[in-house]
Amino acid sequence: MSKGITSQKDNYATWYTDVIIKSGLADYGPVKGTMVIKPYGYELWENIKSALDKMLKDSGHVNAYFPLFIPKSFLASEAKHVEGFAKECAIVTHHRLRTTEDGQGVEVDPESKLEEEVIVRPTSETVIWAMYKKWIQSYRDLPLLINQWANVVRWEMRTRLFLRTTEFLWQEGHTAHETNEEAEQETLNILSFYQSLAEDYLAIPVLTGIKTDAEKFAGAEKTYSIEAMMGDKRALQAGTSHNLGQNFAKAFDVTFQDRENKEEFVFATSWGVSTRLVGGVVMAHGDDNGLVLPPKIAPIQVIIIPIAKTDADKEIVMAHVDDIVSQ
Amino acid sequence: MSKGITSQKDNYATWYTDVIIKSGLADYGPVKGTMVIKPYGYELWENIKSALDKMLKDSGHVNAYFPLFIPKSFLASEAKHVEGFAKECAIVTHHRLRTTEDGQGVEVDPESKLEEEVIVRPTSETVIWAMYKKWIQSYRDLPLLINQWANVVRWEMRTRLFLRTTEFLWQEGHTAHETNEEAEQETLNILSFYQSLAEDYLAIPVLTGIKTDAEKFAGAEKTYSIEAMMGDKRALQAGTSHNLGQNFAKAFDVTFQDRENKEEFVFATSWGVSTRLVGGVVMAHGDDNGLVLPPKIAPIQVIIIPIAKTDADKEIVMAHVDDIVSQ
Repeated sequence: MSKGITSQKDNYATWYTDVIIKSGLADYGPVKGTMVIKPYGYELWENIKSALDKMLKDSGHVNAYFPLFIPKSFLASEAKHVEGFAKECAIVTHHRLRTTEDGQGVEVDPESKLEEEVIVRPTSETVIWAMYKKWIQSYRDLPLLINQWANVVRWEMRTRLFLRTTEFLWQEGHTAHETNEEAEQETLNILSFYQSLAEDYLAIPVLTGIKTDAEKFAGAEKTYSIEAMMGDKRALQAGTSHNLGQNFAKAFDVTFQDRENKEEFVFATSWGVSTRLVGGVVMAHGDDNGLVLPPKIAPIQVIIIPIAKTDADKEIVMAHVDDIVSQ
Repeated sequence: MSKGITSQKDNYATWYTDVIIKSGLADYGPVKGTMVIKPYGYELWENIKSALDKMLKDSGHVNAYFPLFIPKSFLASEAKHVEGFAKECAIVTHHRLRTTEDGQGVEVDPESKLEEEVIVRPTSETVIWAMYKKWIQSYRDLPLLINQWANVVRWEMRTRLFLRTTEFLWQEGHTAHETNEEAEQETLNILSFYQSLAEDYLAIPVLTGIKTDAEKFAGAEKTYSIEAMMGDKRALQAGTSHNLGQNFAKAFDVTFQDRENKEEFVFATSWGVSTRLVGGVVMAHGDDNGLVLPPKIAPIQVIIIPIAKTDADKEIVMAHVDDIVSQ
């Protein structure tokens, strides 16, 4: 057993955290529930990201960037339409600090209170659908196949590195279509990309399937997911793809003129995978000796350790090493 | 003159905004001062990003990700050390919404008030230096050459698309060194990367130089910048590289054991370019007909418009088009 790593059978959760910290993938941030992704962990995420980004671009999706801040009123629109809408989020109420009277600290300037509080995005559905209302008029504007790589925030009480953190990195796709059939097809295409990402790049076999009504995303008609088996024999939900039907189009009043000149609500999908995948990789492949990474996404591919007793040996050994490295 | 674009000589500022909106680079977000970067604008940013990211990685820099949220107390540490510390920022005070009594809206749950307010990062110096304190013990841990691609927030009253927005995307490099000479060398190396990015990729000639004490970053010993000339004959500060001396090391008490076994404060640099560069590209190359993009970063490289009078012509013309496209 590796020094300083709890064995899996003694305590799987502690083993997991030990591996992440000791291998230098991540560290705890100063605000409770936040995480610092260290260079080794971030390069792993960059490799995952670039594999999926290529699949998305090759299939006609484009990236864009929507604002971090959402007006509180947008979430009210969502709450009216979405039963079980999630309410744990970060709320910005002021916009200025000032120096304290003793000159030793800073405090919130009460005069900088915002007229309407803004919410740090827990997901971008609402702001994106507010924009789609401006951008979509006719069937000629469809399909709209937009993806975003971004940080999102959900105020979590119990957090674990990569698996559940207050802030995390993810991609969120938000597409708009003319018909429900097209939206369903998109939902399933994305599910197949997620399956390929997990199996072909992360070397994690997954089950794909539809979630029960109790487990699906509140705003969705149908939620599909990829579920991976971890080393402790528990399933990890590693990615979800939602057919949103016309729910968000109705909440944000997004209609289009169809091919028969009729006004119709747009059909939608949304889908995402996050830095949680890094946690999945650690759990699926790691062991009591520590981190094990699949070759297609490993930042370090090969380590060569030259061993030589004498200076003469060293010259010969290093010549071989140089030879291997230059190939 | 292009339809719907104000001419530069009539009103340069309006011309600028017209070009951005009409070309579909960006749109206004719902919260005042925020911006939506549309797919065309975002691909432009991705191309700029990938050129600079390669220069940074080729020179031994690594990417990492630090949290969006910073404890208020960290900014107090900075304020004590940094004269003229910027105070316009987004302050998170609560973490839960609840449904209003009439069931029609949402409101801030007063019981979710945070014990200590958290700040949405205006820049990551403070959180990064708090981590460096944990990570740096000896000269063997140096240099530390970390870069981050992220969103940051400064609460701005007067905003302009890409040039000054409440939230913007940027890269921020934060390096730690054994000596002041090494830090100064890093500051100048980065300045030369920024110059190359501007001149060789954005096709914007720049002047490089040192800022006056009045204009430099408050926490820096020296600030260097690249300044570009825009179409209205004004200079645009397009990137800055700071030699921070030991200011942040002292504010966050980051020392290392040097080669003579003495405790010494670490020397630091920081440097950044942002989505403001996209605004610079628009102003440097655009004209009264609209957007003009330099070839190395243009998302659309060539547009072929086939013109044919008859069906027979069309066949011949399209054969030529296919021939060009397949080359």
